[in-house]
Amino acid sequence: MTLPDSLAGTTVAVLGGTGPQGRGLARRFAAAGLPVVIGSRSAERAAEAAAALASDVGGTVTGADNAGAASAGDIVVVAVPWDGHGDLLKSLASELAGKVVVDCVNPLGFDKQGAYALHVEEGSAAQQAEALLPDSTVVGAFHNVSAVLLEDPAVESVDTDVLVLGDVREATDLVQDLCTTIPGVRGIYGGRLRNAHQVEAFTANLISINRRYKAHSGLRVTDV
Amino acid sequence: MTLPDSLAGTTVAVLGGTGPQGRGLARRFAAAGLPVVIGSRSAERAAEAAAALASDVGGTVTGADNAGAASAGDIVVVAVPWDGHGDLLKSLASELAGKVVVDCVNPLGFDKQGAYALHVEEGSAAQQAEALLPDSTVVGAFHNVSAVLLEDPAVESVDTDVLVLGDVREATDLVQDLCTTIPGVRGIYGGRLRNAHQVEAFTANLISINRRYKAHSGLRVTDV
Repeated sequence: MTLPDSLAGTTVAVLGGTGPQGRGLARRFAAAGLPVVIGSRSAERAAEAAAALASDVGGTVTGADNAGAASAGDIVVVAVPWDGHGDLLKSLASELAGKVVVDCVNPLGFDKQGAYALHVEEGSAAQQAEALLPDSTVVGAFHNVSAVLLEDPAVESVDTDVLVLGDVREATDLVQDLCTTIPGVRGIYGGRLRNAHQVEAFTANLISINRRYKAHSGLRVTDV
Repeated sequence: MTLPDSLAGTTVAVLGGTGPQGRGLARRFAAAGLPVVIGSRSAERAAEAAAALASDVGGTVTGADNAGAASAGDIVVVAVPWDGHGDLLKSLASELAGKVVVDCVNPLGFDKQGAYALHVEEGSAAQQAEALLPDSTVVGAFHNVSAVLLEDPAVESVDTDVLVLGDVREATDLVQDLCTTIPGVRGIYGGRLRNAHQVEAFTANLISINRRYKAHSGLRVTDV
């Protein structure tokens, strides 16, 4: 596919790019022709993951520690574990200033009955990011996309929509364009950031569905 | 269509059956051949709505006040406004004892920026119902189905899945069967009642989507 004009010359950094969701997104963005910087706590592991991805899908993929990746990215995707999310973002506020920050983090707990939504004081991971990054534009997206499908090279098209949440139209439009770089995916505007919690938490339901139906479930929005 | 065996001889009561969501569900259940009792605060308005529905789609449709409807139903669907939800259910605990109670209520607030999820002390409307109805089996369902589409006789098939939430397999299976009486709809098990909040709250996102895209949006679960 051709990249949308809005993304020409745009470098995408993925913080937590060595975890399953981050790796999967980095793979799809690199495959679409976007320069990608994989961020990780360890610059060495980031460089290894970048080299593996570049040899697999081609394109310009580099690795850095999370601060280096945050500096290098024009759009910065946050795909780190919920535990540590706030501390990391607080430490990167200056690197992320002036940028679109795409939060994909789902604050979930797990017990023997499965997954459940954790209470987040700010309302949601995305709103926590917004509170910690006053000079960035925070958008929520990619919460409900199966990492398994993103990472699987045999999956040519990912059968799901991505809900894009945010309060700044220019930024949500840009992230909707970013979604379309993943074959099969549509980026659908899903409301303001104050309505991000339920989209994050919905991942717990998809995990229940995956267990019951032995699926890698996703969502499509109908009549859009 | 043929009714599932599990629903043979089953009367469905719809509390709040004169509101848009309740009317829409009552219409579809009656059209599927299920005996329906429309409940309302006013027995007169319930009877009027029942008569109108019976003349429109046929079938056995009667009206009663909410207590009468709760007594008459084998399955009781709760489609009342959030404001008053708790008081009504508390008052009907004995009528609802031993029954499957299907809660469809979305606790939402509205301001000039649109809809947003309200805080619910018990976690969700469904969990509030569970707390107030210790002798009933509470299931959450029908949260995200467009009342406009349910009510429109010209809409032959409703393009959405219904997530069915609950902790008792027999009850969620039954409600999944109830979902399939609406043409086009699948009932998908969506997790335990503790994960009902985000499904209820998700209606705020669908309202945002409807505004942006001028749609009557719904959800489909992929890979199931």
